[in-house]
Amino acid sequence: MKGAVLYGPRDVRFEARADPTIIEPSDAIIRLPVTCICGSDLWPYRGVNPVTQPVPMGHEYCGIVEEIGGAVTSVRPGQFVIGSFFASDNTCPHCHAGYQTSCQRREGVVGAQAPRMRVPLADGTLVATKDAPPDDLLPSFLALSDVMGTGWFAADAAGVKPGATVVVVGDGAVGLLGVLSARQMGAARIIAMSRHETRQALAREFGATDIVTERGDDGVARIKDLTKGVGADSVLECVGTQESMQQAIRAARPGGSVGYVGVPHGVALDGQALFFTHVRLHGGPAPVRRYLPHLIDLVWKGTINPGRVFDLTLPLDRVADGYRAMDERRAIKTLLRP
Amino acid sequence: MKGAVLYGPRDVRFEARADPTIIEPSDAIIRLPVTCICGSDLWPYRGVNPVTQPVPMGHEYCGIVEEIGGAVTSVRPGQFVIGSFFASDNTCPHCHAGYQTSCQRREGVVGAQAPRMRVPLADGTLVATKDAPPDDLLPSFLALSDVMGTGWFAADAAGVKPGATVVVVGDGAVGLLGVLSARQMGAARIIAMSRHETRQALAREFGATDIVTERGDDGVARIKDLTKGVGADSVLECVGTQESMQQAIRAARPGGSVGYVGVPHGVALDGQALFFTHVRLHGGPAPVRRYLPHLIDLVWKGTINPGRVFDLTLPLDRVADGYRAMDERRAIKTLLRP
Repeated sequence: MKGAVLYGPRDVRFEARADPTIIEPSDAIIRLPVTCICGSDLWPYRGVNPVTQPVPMGHEYCGIVEEIGGAVTSVRPGQFVIGSFFASDNTCPHCHAGYQTSCQRREGVVGAQAPRMRVPLADGTLVATKDAPPDDLLPSFLALSDVMGTGWFAADAAGVKPGATVVVVGDGAVGLLGVLSARQMGAARIIAMSRHETRQALAREFGATDIVTERGDDGVARIKDLTKGVGADSVLECVGTQESMQQAIRAARPGGSVGYVGVPHGVALDGQALFFTHVRLHGGPAPVRRYLPHLIDLVWKGTINPGRVFDLTLPLDRVADGYRAMDERRAIKTLLRP
Repeated sequence: MKGAVLYGPRDVRFEARADPTIIEPSDAIIRLPVTCICGSDLWPYRGVNPVTQPVPMGHEYCGIVEEIGGAVTSVRPGQFVIGSFFASDNTCPHCHAGYQTSCQRREGVVGAQAPRMRVPLADGTLVATKDAPPDDLLPSFLALSDVMGTGWFAADAAGVKPGATVVVVGDGAVGLLGVLSARQMGAARIIAMSRHETRQALAREFGATDIVTERGDDGVARIKDLTKGVGADSVLECVGTQESMQQAIRAARPGGSVGYVGVPHGVALDGQALFFTHVRLHGGPAPVRRYLPHLIDLVWKGTINPGRVFDLTLPLDRVADGYRAMDERRAIKTLLRP
């Protein structure tokens, strides 16, 4: 088969790779009717995370089980399944506490920008849908694998409550789905920080009530204006830079919470400054597995449509064009069809 | 009157100071039957916080109202009252949210190591007891003004739940009262980190089930041993150094919480490292005012006896000896009698 491999900054190639096979008895092989590119793939693509050897790319996936190892009992060939970017056994104490991305047997899942892939720890990682979904729901189910689950965790970690005032920092797919999540959780007011018209429109469609285009001190001043000088109850940090993290902390009220899900790059927090803000911090790699059953249900019922974040669809062999479009912010998120 | 004034590192003088007077109509003047020295007074005493001019010391207080300004309505002369180290109006949005130490009109309270003092924003700051307390309860009521309320906030911010496993970093008065707080909140297991026998004994009296004397990597390994490799649900950070903060974060399980109340000195947090721990952080100057009614009730009923942290009592004119004893860790906390 052929799949995407990153060789170095801005050098993604669509090339022959070994077919995936069962290595451990807990593995499953799945066929991917759709796949996609993640905002976090841009960190190594842009050279921010160094690439020292060719890396098979892609960690978001849903599809049909083709083959299972001898120890797998909870999914069977022919089922449609969704998993998370970290495989987990879903039985260890961290999984039981709902932090499957800190599973004691956690394994990264890679190589999903391809027609087929291997998923380790299949029993703990994969959740099967009741039926094979219709084609038009595939993008939304695919989004659950990472961006939707991550936006949901951001809102959950930020403690979004019914009636709350929420700020979302970051207008990528995760930030936009953070808006959708906050709306589902009953936020009364959702302020999206975005300077990009297409993304502002989608933020409004997902439930944003206000758009703030300013950044830095001006951005904070605008949030304070909009909240009578108080600040937000909950802030979702969906970028991962020092600037975005400071923006998030400064937008929150004392006793408010920041849920941060953008993998921090160069973020340093001064303990004393944080102390005097009275702001609560919680984040990390989203435990998507925890939320999958609920989110699958919401997609089936048509309550949420997270697949709306895909605004570019390409055949898989044009994966390099998909990266370029996202890197240049021409696309929010690229769907690929093998 | 005479009170304690800090001139520079290890230079505390008991000297003549102006009698406190009503300056704003919202002020009250109270007479202090007892007063004390706080662990946080040691930061400037040791020169860690520079002292640029002579500073009247002391911010913990309870006593009899002697005089009130024209705007004060909720307390009257003759009542016994307790307040917090930050005065607050208790009416602004931050106060309503329970974060009175971030009150929009917040004022520091100073000069409590004296026979009398001025308390700003008396209506929002002071809580009166139903009767004048007997002399033997005075140390416990005095402790509510800061250390007990701070230990309680540490436990609250760390989300201590019935049945939880809790670690307390720091064996000063706040850490010890954090142990007591965690016990009151129903923690099943309370691991106190302490190398000091007197403090270990008091920690056990307050409810600690385990004592860990190791620090750094060894301390973390010991906590992991005691928790089957999982880590603690809640960790109370009651020191404020880089070492103690790292100890606290590393002792918590993924999804666990660190409540930090030691004013951070030289604490820098790496965003990416924190992200991958999945640990929740909440802290700041304890909103003692929020907890005062409940804690006053617990002291009256004899449920808690936080005054046990005072293990040295001196007349106020020997205040300098009190600082020395705490600086040299000969005393946990010094009670002073004017």
